[in-house]
Amino acid sequence: MHKKQVSVFIPDSFLSETSDLKLKTYKVGVIGRVLAVFNVNMIVIYKDLSQKDDKFVEDSDFMADVLGYMNTPQYLRKRAYPIKSELKHVGILPPLRTPHHPTDADVKVGEFRPGFTVKRNKKGTFVDIGMNGKENLAFCKEQLSVNKVFSFRITKVAKEIIVTPDEPNDVYWGYETLSTHKSLKNSLKLVNPDFVVETTRYADTINSIFNEFEEKLDSADKLAIVFGGPYSSITEELDGFSWDLIKVNTVPSQGTETVRTEEAVLATLSIVNMLLNSS
Amino acid sequence: MHKKQVSVFIPDSFLSETSDLKLKTYKVGVIGRVLAVFNVNMIVIYKDLSQKDDKFVEDSDFMADVLGYMNTPQYLRKRAYPIKSELKHVGILPPLRTPHHPTDADVKVGEFRPGFTVKRNKKGTFVDIGMNGKENLAFCKEQLSVNKVFSFRITKVAKEIIVTPDEPNDVYWGYETLSTHKSLKNSLKLVNPDFVVETTRYADTINSIFNEFEEKLDSADKLAIVFGGPYSSITEELDGFSWDLIKVNTVPSQGTETVRTEEAVLATLSIVNMLLNSS
Repeated sequence: MHKKQVSVFIPDSFLSETSDLKLKTYKVGVIGRVLAVFNVNMIVIYKDLSQKDDKFVEDSDFMADVLGYMNTPQYLRKRAYPIKSELKHVGILPPLRTPHHPTDADVKVGEFRPGFTVKRNKKGTFVDIGMNGKENLAFCKEQLSVNKVFSFRITKVAKEIIVTPDEPNDVYWGYETLSTHKSLKNSLKLVNPDFVVETTRYADTINSIFNEFEEKLDSADKLAIVFGGPYSSITEELDGFSWDLIKVNTVPSQGTETVRTEEAVLATLSIVNMLLNSS
Repeated sequence: MHKKQVSVFIPDSFLSETSDLKLKTYKVGVIGRVLAVFNVNMIVIYKDLSQKDDKFVEDSDFMADVLGYMNTPQYLRKRAYPIKSELKHVGILPPLRTPHHPTDADVKVGEFRPGFTVKRNKKGTFVDIGMNGKENLAFCKEQLSVNKVFSFRITKVAKEIIVTPDEPNDVYWGYETLSTHKSLKNSLKLVNPDFVVETTRYADTINSIFNEFEEKLDSADKLAIVFGGPYSSITEELDGFSWDLIKVNTVPSQGTETVRTEEAVLATLSIVNMLLNSS
């Protein structure tokens, strides 16, 4: 697995062509799957400035909820996501089946697991790491904020299971989700990438700038890949900031008049993933 | 646009994890879109031999119906697809917006259009090419089989509109759909490709055989790209036939335990499309 930080930016107008809640849920599920398939570290939902003020605030938060839900292991979902009507179709979401979603209820020393901080006392925090039995909690000797999901390493398995906050660095450990309600430019500033890939059909095709693209990817540490929405390509000017910018058309000779955001995300990540794995 | 014939093969078990008809329809719609985005000429649904006899015969025909429906221009859909309950959710299918789906009701000499053969007499065939007015038919001076969609070129625009069977060769003109109910091997024999790309996570990664892959693509004329289904990778042995075969993993370092067929199709076509456009 490559060691770069990869983030993907999509607009809050992503769901605007879909009114059916089940299909909206499914469409976001497609994005969640793609992030995990290609080891993406962060998904950022920015505000599409081409649309009327605050039109998609709710959609943006809905997308963040669904993506967060998918990224949460099965055993923590009920604790982390209390029932709400917008999430009533989450049952149709495909599982990620990533290493950070362990399916085994037995724990071993050295193993990593996401856990939910249930309660805290002076000595530390009780954590649900998905062991058999609802009240079977592990203990962390640090005072953590409660009602949150963190990642832990299991340090002792005895009568009491002891865990410490930690994350592995050799396997994919899921993605973070940000719903910024800010412009793309300001959302990028929050993440602070050193290299931004702007995907647009109006740029040079990937095949015509292949070597340049590969070299730039190679030297980047924090990569951001940004996509337009159903209404238009990216309308903001992203040149002239702290990051290096390349504009690229990753779908040369497209057979259709438009390429949908989810299609562009998968098509682009497929090529980027190939390149990141060849260096 | 490149001049190669590209066909994609997916198993009839493709929908087996989905029971909801609306989601089944949507999932097939994702495939239809991807075919058009990447200028694919043919989609073949083969029989997944890893599953019990004839388990997915209906799904296979359903997929063919939905894909055929999507490939049919709006103005011919009612004629070509009489109402059936399996197709009740076709309203959610995203439009292809390809050149073979003209939205203009005015016709010009030299223009190409799909048409539906409505009736025939001794002099020729009356064809619906989507002009204003339901009974406003064009005439073709050939006796064609009726109740079928063919492609036509408009040769005369006067009181009568005259058309002749023809297809353009410089724009993408949609895909053919085959539901074979046969094994992958026998389905491939029907199409008779000269180069077969077998996608499987157990093969060398695309980045490690990039140059070899590019050269083979380059010299192929009829390319077939074959995918496994939800139950397993491809189980049939495809080596030793008239075609050249390469096995390749197009999703190196996948973050998830499995890659879904629709994800693999998009990821693979993205890379193949880039390579076909660079030669």
